[in-house]
Amino acid sequence: MIAVCGGGEADAETMRLASEVGRELAARGALVISGGLGGVMTACCQGAHEAGGLTVGIVPGTNTSVANPDVDIAIASGMAEGRNVLIVHSADAIIALKGAYGTLSEISLGLAMRKPVAVVGDWCPIPGVVLFETPREAAAHAVAATVRAGGQRA
Amino acid sequence: MIAVCGGGEADAETMRLASEVGRELAARGALVISGGLGGVMTACCQGAHEAGGLTVGIVPGTNTSVANPDVDIAIASGMAEGRNVLIVHSADAIIALKGAYGTLSEISLGLAMRKPVAVVGDWCPIPGVVLFETPREAAAHAVAATVRAGGQRA
Amino acid sequence: MIAVCGGGEADAETMRLASEVGRELAARGALVISGGLGGVMTACCQGAHEAGGLTVGIVPGTNTSVANPDVDIAIASGMAEGRNVLIVHSADAIIALKGAYGTLSEISLGLAMRKPVAVVGDWCPIPGVVLFETPREAAAHAVAATVRAGGQRA
Amino acid sequence: MIAVCGGGEADAETMRLASEVGRELAARGALVISGGLGGVMTACCQGAHEAGGLTVGIVPGTNTSVANPDVDIAIASGMAEGRNVLIVHSADAIIALKGAYGTLSEISLGLAMRKPVAVVGDWCPIPGVVLFETPREAAAHAVAATVRAGGQRA
Repeated sequence: MIAVCGGGEADAETMRLASEVGRELAARGALVISGGLGGVMTACCQGAHEAGGLTVGIVPGTNTSVANPDVDIAIASGMAEGRNVLIVHSADAIIALKGAYGTLSEISLGLAMRKPVAVVGDWCPIPGVVLFETPREAAAHAVAATVRAGGQRA
Repeated sequence: MIAVCGGGEADAETMRLASEVGRELAARGALVISGGLGGVMTACCQGAHEAGGLTVGIVPGTNTSVANPDVDIAIASGMAEGRNVLIVHSADAIIALKGAYGTLSEISLGLAMRKPVAVVGDWCPIPGVVLFETPREAAAHAVAATVRAGGQRA
Repeated sequence: MIAVCGGGEADAETMRLASEVGRELAARGALVISGGLGGVMTACCQGAHEAGGLTVGIVPGTNTSVANPDVDIAIASGMAEGRNVLIVHSADAIIALKGAYGTLSEISLGLAMRKPVAVVGDWCPIPGVVLFETPREAAAHAVAATVRAGGQRA
Repeated sequence: MIAVCGGGEADAETMRLASEVGRELAARGALVISGGLGGVMTACCQGAHEAGGLTVGIVPGTNTSVANPDVDIAIASGMAEGRNVLIVHSADAIIALKGAYGTLSEISLGLAMRKPVAVVGDWCPIPGVVLFETPREAAAHAVAATVRAGGQRA
């Protein structure tokens, strides 16, 4: 199970990259977990579905109906920003696309929990992540790390 | 998505009932969510798998590897008993089999959140639940309530 | 640190009992922790203040300003009903006054965590609690259990 | 209520700065909230006590006995790293001293929740924080922001 993080609102290029991350993960048999809402979260779920994958979304509130339509399994945390912790706890690895402070919190939490964190692009100010130029490389890295650790697959 | 609650250790009759609850839910197209560990949680996941269903388990710790083998989607809450709240928040209805205080906490939380709570058997001291003699009746009731509310299906 | 649980809306007699629980706890040097809102939560904080005690309130949302004016230390859980788990985790013992399902969830969680649970009055359907007729007896019992376990004092 | 964040293990200079942050906050009437364990968390609580302040610690596990001896009010989250979210939710402002990824997660969460984040020193890679050279300046900034927002005082 691999977390995909990034902005709830995103530019067209970031959306394209997020969709490709979802496709590449699903094509490798990984479950995709995200915050289940818009922007990067929507794009990665759509991409995963295009490749026949399964998607999990952990939403901040107490109602799963806010999840985007490409979330297969919606979990209602009722924990506001605390849902970021659940996403990172549940993931075997994290792939981060361009985002704001919520995304940085997920990257920091992933690193604090000693999980592999792959970042697509050159935007991340936090040291300790592994940078990739393409979704394909980031997905391959994250899935390889997960398989080594014996993680969940779809 | 329907939560199945009950003892982490259970007698043979309760295990049989839990397995049948899982089968009846999966046969009606419901996703089964539970605490993902042993006893009733294991039996309901096995039953759901026998009927081709999909199962979600929210485990108390930070490691998904403790989930029973019939959990398809494991979420690591890292929240100890707090994971009970996530199960109830995410479920459209709750079916409870014989259990101890953890099960009573899930029943109470479900009622506090005004969700349908169906109990199999005559063991529950908390008023306000709907009692059923058989798993089939409880599953039919829970699924009907979920469909009326527009809940998640597998 | 002793949790006081009970209805967010309460009748005059329950409010009187809750206030007396707060006074009796504070007079014995205990910290009072509650959900920080109205009804029993307000009354126990007022009672604690009358006896010079200190009060902690864990509110459900992300804003501490909803806490009642007699909460000295407000914690914003942002966890909705999940805040009940934090109250019980933090308490050395629980005193419950008449309440609804939220109160039953706190009683169940307390028993699941093997903490002493003292109930004032004859209203509680859950077995395993210790029943008391008066706030004074319940407070004495809870404080004695806490002292034996080495718990926090104001 | 002002959160003090920083490494659970810290060098002598960071400990000295953290202690001074605690003293400066308490001298201005602020409640100090932290993760309640070692390093910066211990030093800021000690400093607050030297100036007569009150300290709150939210510990990761389910047992408050791990809190450092200068924590007055210990809250057991039972939420592992998720306790960082509770600290930030409850704080009116955040002061961060040198730390690792857990500290970066608290800074990110604070910024995501649009709370003032003051950093002592020149070590923080995350943009959007306000940098200060001395604990006195950081404390004054954080308390001023809190007073403007109507926050909690000891």
